[in-house]
Formats: sequence, C-alpha cells, structure tokens
Amino acid sequence: MPQISLADLNAAGKADFVAALANVVEHSPWTAEKLAEQRPFAGIVQLHTALMAAIQSAEPDVQLALIRAHPDLANKTQRAAGLTAESADEQNSAGLDRLSDAEYAAFERVNNAYREKFGFPYIVCVRRHTRDSILHDFETRLRNIAKTETRRAIEEIGRISALRLDQLVIAEDRLKVHGRLSTHVLDNHAGKPAPGIALELVELAKLGEDRVIARAATNADGRTDQPLIGGRPLPIGRYELKFSIGKYYAERGVQTPDPPFLDEIPLRFAISEPEGHYHVPLLVTPWSYATYRGS
Amino acid sequence: MPQISLADLNAAGKADFVAALANVVEHSPWTAEKLAEQRPFAGIVQLHTALMAAIQSAEPDVQLALIRAHPDLANKTQRAAGLTAESADEQNSAGLDRLSDAEYAAFERVNNAYREKFGFPYIVCVRRHTRDSILHDFETRLRNIAKTETRRAIEEIGRISALRLDQLVIAEDRLKVHGRLSTHVLDNHAGKPAPGIALELVELAKLGEDRVIARAATNADGRTDQPLIGGRPLPIGRYELKFSIGKYYAERGVQTPDPPFLDEIPLRFAISEPEGHYHVPLLVTPWSYATYRGS
Amino acid sequence: MPQISLADLNAAGKADFVAALANVVEHSPWTAEKLAEQRPFAGIVQLHTALMAAIQSAEPDVQLALIRAHPDLANKTQRAAGLTAESADEQNSAGLDRLSDAEYAAFERVNNAYREKFGFPYIVCVRRHTRDSILHDFETRLRNIAKTETRRAIEEIGRISALRLDQLVIAEDRLKVHGRLSTHVLDNHAGKPAPGIALELVELAKLGEDRVIARAATNADGRTDQPLIGGRPLPIGRYELKFSIGKYYAERGVQTPDPPFLDEIPLRFAISEPEGHYHVPLLVTPWSYATYRGS
Amino acid sequence: MPQISLADLNAAGKADFVAALANVVEHSPWTAEKLAEQRPFAGIVQLHTALMAAIQSAEPDVQLALIRAHPDLANKTQRAAGLTAESADEQNSAGLDRLSDAEYAAFERVNNAYREKFGFPYIVCVRRHTRDSILHDFETRLRNIAKTETRRAIEEIGRISALRLDQLVIAEDRLKVHGRLSTHVLDNHAGKPAPGIALELVELAKLGEDRVIARAATNADGRTDQPLIGGRPLPIGRYELKFSIGKYYAERGVQTPDPPFLDEIPLRFAISEPEGHYHVPLLVTPWSYATYRGS
Repeated sequence: MPQISLADLNAAGKADFVAALANVVEHSPWTAEKLAEQRPFAGIVQLHTALMAAIQSAEPDVQLALIRAHPDLANKTQRAAGLTAESADEQNSAGLDRLSDAEYAAFERVNNAYREKFGFPYIVCVRRHTRDSILHDFETRLRNIAKTETRRAIEEIGRISALRLDQLVIAEDRLKVHGRLSTHVLDNHAGKPAPGIALELVELAKLGEDRVIARAATNADGRTDQPLIGGRPLPIGRYELKFSIGKYYAERGVQTPDPPFLDEIPLRFAISEPEGHYHVPLLVTPWSYATYRGS
Repeated sequence: MPQISLADLNAAGKADFVAALANVVEHSPWTAEKLAEQRPFAGIVQLHTALMAAIQSAEPDVQLALIRAHPDLANKTQRAAGLTAESADEQNSAGLDRLSDAEYAAFERVNNAYREKFGFPYIVCVRRHTRDSILHDFETRLRNIAKTETRRAIEEIGRISALRLDQLVIAEDRLKVHGRLSTHVLDNHAGKPAPGIALELVELAKLGEDRVIARAATNADGRTDQPLIGGRPLPIGRYELKFSIGKYYAERGVQTPDPPFLDEIPLRFAISEPEGHYHVPLLVTPWSYATYRGS
Repeated sequence: MPQISLADLNAAGKADFVAALANVVEHSPWTAEKLAEQRPFAGIVQLHTALMAAIQSAEPDVQLALIRAHPDLANKTQRAAGLTAESADEQNSAGLDRLSDAEYAAFERVNNAYREKFGFPYIVCVRRHTRDSILHDFETRLRNIAKTETRRAIEEIGRISALRLDQLVIAEDRLKVHGRLSTHVLDNHAGKPAPGIALELVELAKLGEDRVIARAATNADGRTDQPLIGGRPLPIGRYELKFSIGKYYAERGVQTPDPPFLDEIPLRFAISEPEGHYHVPLLVTPWSYATYRGS
Repeated sequence: MPQISLADLNAAGKADFVAALANVVEHSPWTAEKLAEQRPFAGIVQLHTALMAAIQSAEPDVQLALIRAHPDLANKTQRAAGLTAESADEQNSAGLDRLSDAEYAAFERVNNAYREKFGFPYIVCVRRHTRDSILHDFETRLRNIAKTETRRAIEEIGRISALRLDQLVIAEDRLKVHGRLSTHVLDNHAGKPAPGIALELVELAKLGEDRVIARAATNADGRTDQPLIGGRPLPIGRYELKFSIGKYYAERGVQTPDPPFLDEIPLRFAISEPEGHYHVPLLVTPWSYATYRGS
C-alpha cells in the first residue's frame, strides 16, 4: 500500500489531503475534510485524536450515516458487489472469506438479528479478532441498547481508522495499535535454550476449521527470529502452540521410551488484549513441562 | 465372567481343570492338560510360569500350531465366523471393532503382509495396546526374521494368557499385569488441591477418531476417586488429558480476562509401560501450568 | 508417659479419676472434679468439650486463679523452682530451655510487660510454636485489652489440655491436635522419584540459633519413611528444608559443571496452621527446581 | 584508570607503546617490547593473541621468570611491600584483602605448599573467582605435575592480561572476557512481571563470611535495571539470590496467612563459567516458586 509522510499531509493542498485520507473512515470523506482545516498535526496520535473528535462532535444523523456506510461482515452479496480494498483486506485477515458453512450461517444469523434490532450494520475492528471472538462479541453486543451500540460502533470505527492511519501515514510517533506474541523454549534437561524446535501456532475455532497461522523453528537462543504475531493487533481468540519435543530429544541422543512420554506438546491459551505483549514460553525436559504468561 | 479359586483348580478332577482353563490359551487345551499333571500350584504366578514352560518346551511344530490357532486382528470375516469370547473382548477393548476405514485398510494390509512373510498370524496382547501402537508394533515386527517372530508370538501368548488367568483365577498372589494412570490438580493460586475440576482422558489416533476413554471430576483432595485407568494394563499409546480450568476459576470468583488466558488445558503424553504407574499431575494458576511424570 | 483408657477413666473411682487428670490443666484439679460427675464420656472429644465448658462457665475469679496457676515462659527462676513435668516438657519442645542471650532477654522483656499490663502470666500452647512465633504472638497480644487476653488465655489452656489429654487418654476417637509436614523429591531429569537424597529440616530463628529438627533420606518413592514432623502440632514458624541434589546427580553419572549449578537446594517456607498438612515437594533437574504447597 | 585507543597504540613511539602496556603482564615489559615490532594490530583480539604467542614461544627460563614475577595471593607481607595497582585491585575484587582468619590460614597453607612443590607462585586470574573457588582451584592444581602447572600458569596470565587489556585499550572489537548474571521475577498469581521486589545477591563462603555483593529492586518488567553482575567475569562460586516475596504480596493485598507460606525466597546456585550468561529467574505465587538456568 502506498504510504505518505505526515509532513507531506500537513503541506498538501486540501483536495490532495482529503484524497489521501479518503478511506481511513469507510465511505466518509467529510471526516478528512474536517481535519484538513486543523492542520498542521504534530503527530499521528494528534491526527487520530482530531479525527475521533470530529466524529464524536458530529450530529446524531451524521454519525448514523457514517455507521451505515459500513458493510456487513462476511456478507457474500456485498463481497461480490465490492467492498473497499481496506474492508476486504481486513475481513480476509480474520478468515471471513473462508468461513465454514456453520460459521457462515452463524454470521448471517447475527448480522440479520443485529440489523433488525439496531437498524445499522454491526461494526467491529476485525483485525483485533478471530472468527470465534467476532461471533462472541456479536452476541454480547446484541444484548445492548441502541445508544450503547452507537457508542460502541464509533469506538470500533476509531480502532479501524487508527489501524488504517498506522499503515498509511509515516510519522515520528506511533499509534499504540500493535501487539506481540512470542515464545521461548528452555531445555531444563540440558540447562540451555533449545534450538531447532519446530513449532506451529494454530487458531482454534468452535464452528469452523482450526487454522495454522504461523510456523517457525527456534533459533540458538531458543526463540523465534520473528514474533509469532507482530506488527499488527493480536486477534482475540483461542490458540494452540505446538512444539515438536520428541524429535528434539531424539536428535540429541537423550534416552526416551517408545513412544516418548512427551512428543508434540500443545500449549493452549487465549488472547484478550490485542495490543498487549504475550510471551508464552515452554520449560521442558523429556518428562515435564511448564508454561506461563511471561513478559 | 465366572471365576474359580486356585484351591478349587488344584482339587478339581482333570477334565474339570482342563475345561476351566480351556480358553486361557486360544484353542489349545493341550496346554491345560500338561498343567493338570503338575498340580498343586502354590500360586497363580507359579501356574503361569508352568504354562509358559509347557509352551516353550513344546516341539516347534506344536508351537507353530499353537500360534496358528490364533485369529487375525481386526479381520471382519473371522469376526463374523466367531472368535472366542476372550478374543472378541480383547479386540473390542482396543477398539478394533470400531476402526475407521483408513485404520481398517491399514490393519488388512499389515495382516496380509505379515501372514505372507511368516506363514502365521500376527499375535499381540491387544489389551496392552491402542490401535496406533498395534500398527506401530506390526510394522516393527514385520522387519524381523521368522525365528524372532516365533519367539515374539509366544511372548505375546504369555501376556494374553497371564491376563486371562488374572481374570479367571482367584489366588492369594497376583500376576503383575495391571498398570495405573492417575492425576492430581494442585491450585497454586490458592495453595490448595483443586476440587470439582471436570476432566477427560482421550486416546489419540493417527488414522482414526480420537476416543474419550474416561471422564471424571476431581475430589476434595484434587484427585479422582478412581484411577483414570486401573485394574488392567495401560494401553501403549498417545493420550490427551483435558482439564476445565476456566470454569473452576470463574466459579471461585478469581478475576480473569474474557476469554480467560487458560480455559481447557490439554496435557499430551504417551504411555509405553502397560504395567507401570503413570501419575500425570497438573499444577495450575490462571496464568501458568506445569506437569510432569510423577509417582 | 503412662496412659489410661477412656473406659478405665469412666469406670474409675472419683479420686482416681481426678488423680489421673490432675495435670491436664496446670495446678487446677477442680476442673477434673467437675468432670468426674459428668461421666461416662462417649469419647475424648466429648471429654475435652466438657472440660472447656467447665472452665468457661466458672466465675471470673476462678478463671483468673486458673490463669495465674500457670508459669511464665522461659523463666529461669521458675524453672529452677520446678515446673510441672508437663510444662517443662512443653517448654523444652520449643527450645525454651536453650535460648540465646538475645532470646532470653526478649522473653524476659515481654513476660514482664505482659504481667505488668494484665496482672497474669502470658499463656500459650508452646507445642504449637517456635521461639520466633511465641515472641511474635506475645507482641501481638500485648496490644489487646485485658478482657480479650482472658479469653485468649483460656483458648490456649484449651489447646494445652487437648494435647495433654491426647497423650494421656486412649480412646476410639481422636482430638484434632496433630499436623503433618511431608516432602517428596521428583527427578524430572530421569522422570522418576529421586531416592537416597539426604535432607535436613531447619527451624529458623531471628534472635537465636537455627536448629536442625529433622534429618532423613528419601526412599525408593522419593519420600521419607516418616513425616518430617508428625504425631504432634506443627510449630508455627519459619523453616528451611535442604536437599543434597549435587551429590545425587553426581552418583548417577549425570554430567554437571564444577561446581554444579545446583548442589544443596534450600526451600524456605513458613507454617501457620499447626494442625494442617503441609506437603512441600521438590521437582528437580540439575538445572531447575520448583516447589509448592501440595497435599 | 586511563584508557588508550588501539589506533593511538598502533601509532605511538615504541617507548610510549611499551610504557602504555607495561603492566598488562606483571613486571614483564619485555612482552610489550616484542609486540611493538608487530604493529599495527587490527583489533584487540589480535593484540592479545600476539601477546600470548610471544609468551608461549619464549624460552623456558624466560617463562619461569615471568611466572616468578607474580605475587602470592593474599600474602600480607607482599601487600605491605606493595603490589602493582592492578594486582591489588584484582585481589581486592575477590575479597582477598578481607579474609577471615580461617581463610587466611588456608591461603597461607596452600601458597606455601604450592611454592614448595613447584618453586614458583600460584597464579590465577582472581577476577574469575571467589575465595572458595580459589581455594578449590589451588587444591586441585597442587596435585598436578610441574609441567602442567607451568602451562596452567601461562593460561592464567593470558586471562589476567586479557582483562587488563580490556580495561586499558579502546578498540572496535572486544575480548570475550565478561559474563552476565541476570534475574527476572514473574508473578504467576497475577500473570504479570513483579515490580518493586527487593533482592539481594550473596556470595557464599565455606570458611569466611558470606558477602552481599549486589542489592537491587525489580523494575516494571520484573527485571533489574542493571545485570546483577556485568561488565566483568562472573566469579566462579556459590551464590544465594534472595527475593522479598512476602512484602510484595502483602502490599498488593493478596490474602496470605501469618506468617506467609513464602516470605524471603532464597535461590542457591553456582557459577562455573565466568564468561557465560546466567539468567536465574523466579516464577512465583504466594504458594509456589520455580527457578531454572535460563537465557
């Protein structure tokens, strides 16, 4: 995606400024127009704060129009008709383009129920979610009153626009929109980090298929060269991190029975803070293991 | 199954003695006949030792006939034609009557390959195995020479007959044919055993369906009232023990995020010693857990 | 110490009954006289309950006399003059006959302050305490009002008499006056209990010398044949349990550096429930260890 | 201490070069003279390699003179007479200026025994040692033959000179002469790093007094701002790292008994690799703790 510097945004003509930020808020260029007059912005945090102030101070009918400008989630007809590139990317990142039949049916059911109750589409920052957590959020929010949901929708628009700004605008400061998931394997049998351990991160799903979302091997320090998830929000959801321990000890000539007591070790945990740092290490011997939320 | 005391066996007429032990070795009453002359037996271990000595000292052609008197594993035609009740029970205990298509095909393939190479059926004490470990054993033994496999077949007949004797004969001593799998949940957040935790033991399978083989809840001491597996050999194989931890902490009012970092915790391990004691405890907080092979 | 059965106590003449129980409450045979009339007792718990009821329903001046019949703790003059055998044993069990100078001074100071404030001696069931916890209890109780301390003194007399009854009277039921401290060493490097590990239990003291109060070695199951403390209350206090791990791994030929990363491992913990069960296990490899309050 | 850049050393006149490196090898300026001719050096590692080559290729009598130019360890007469500043600093760093009587006697005994057997002083790079490990090394080396000890002495001169060069010369590359000891406290009760925990690192001594060698408090990430030992070799020896856990939980309002099950937690471990990284974390709840050699 093309990027633009904050300095260039500050210096641009109004039309160019509005064009650059046109898709930060779905189908709502008026928001960019309001910001144009407030330039220059000292940083991206200030820019995003101003954007949210503009939305929050808009008249209720303008806010409602803004909310209604958003597409339904996982709506096949709308997908065919064309989403903005941003919306399509975001929905695909959560796997909404590859739903199981049961998931598709569940999404359709809650979409309809939500529209029927509130008269506007359910909005959520999908990059912060998995399929399961969207359905859970959906069902929780269906119980709210309309006023609460208007506020929640604007909150989510705030998160969506923050992520879009983060990808679009190069500035010296950063919006706090990324999380990090990391691991570390310590071999307590040898008293050393465990290198060369194959591992797999799986996103668990109640209604659909579990998805492998990362594969890696530990390096000389027992860590992965890259975070398992980084440079983006951590999708709220349940995960399983699997480590091939049997192979590791077999290759080192450690005597183990056949089959080995521990072979593939699954650590199952959930993420609830998309902007947090989750460190999920494994302390292991051929006969024991431990994990914890670390830092 | 009817049982008989060792004293009664020692005192019985020869015909009754042979009838009582007729099925201890598949379709081979001559083994019981040999034993009849050696009475009285001081214990069941001595009885079983004498049985094995009788088999081991038999002529090669008699041994071969004994081996050939055994059915194939998981052979549908033979099942229809009728196995001994003992064989059927044993095969069913390992789930051989509920194989997936892939498993059935695998068993048929190795059965045929084995018969073709050695000219006699593959014999294994199925109560000491899962579907996966039988297939693994099969493939390992297919690489042996015939002489080794004759010896291995007799070894397995020894294990099968020991288990059948253990179920049939009441004596003061015991054959060492049982293992034990137990667990214990310690709540390191509260410094106490964790009561009321629902748990499930699953037998994992590569080619077929995983099977839940035990369900229980922890008692006031954090243990289960009964061993997860006891009073029988532990089937060699891979297992997953699942603990409902999220529910436990929620019920105790411990603050956790939504979704909780830990909810259902799976411990995955393998059993390789059917007559061993496996203690697989869980040390847990809402943010950490550990397990090890205990005692 | 001579023991007597509850049946014999129930059947005894009044004088014999009173003589048998004369020292259950320090220098206060009237308590036994009251009990004599209430016989027969169905059990030792009922007997002790009746004793406490007798004391609690006595007139305030009688209660005060009862309290005043008790000796000061760690008072050298009184020791020379002669305590009851029971008092002397109890005080010695907590090491009050072997105080350091600093401890002796501290005891004298709080004894005097207590007597001065309340007009009666400080009473505590010393078998439930260490030197440190008595001094801590002393200082806490010095802040109470007299009425509270009268109640506390009677509570402690209840605990003292329960322990004396437990040692004196043989009955079918038991007073809940004992605790238990146990340990277990699991070798997570080998996946087995760790036998033959020398260990030492030390009572820590702030003002005086630390005291080794138990020495043992682990058996084949990694446990000690006897509890580290059992058959008595666990003295409230701070402890260190030391395990000779370096020697254990050296003897098994496990490669470790010189000096080994782990050699003598100290687990430091406190006991606050004298009648509780404290299980303090050690999970160990040459490079890691863990402990927890178990069960 | 004044420092000099490698570039300046390379460019210096011979006399200045020799003067600058005069004390890198105790009382042996000839070593610097040999190096002067080999300039320029591309890095400090190359410089040190050349120094060791010069010593190793010297005639045996020159090597012996070099060894004899070194002082005895912990020799009071020599201290009074004056060591080089470098030697004095090094000996003081290991506490050799503050020995207990028992330690002083032990050092004198082994010094004399060593001199008597080999005819030259015992040389060791004291910055890599504690009092205990020097005595242990002394006794081990006393069993060697003279030829081995000549080689060992030169090895130790190599380590001493590497450390002196490291402190004296500024270059782009670094000699691998430093180790690092770090810790990290994870609160598994709260699922977070534990900030504000007071901790103390104690060097343990068999014959003399234990010495507190570092005090710190954990920061917001549960780590210490500086390594517990860093920027120098880690002295081989036994240590205890103590954490004030009771206070930490009390301040957070976590309910614990009086006294708390865990209060001050000691982790006892040994260092055997002076140039290694030792990470010794604490995973803790009010009821459990674990440690391991991490990375």
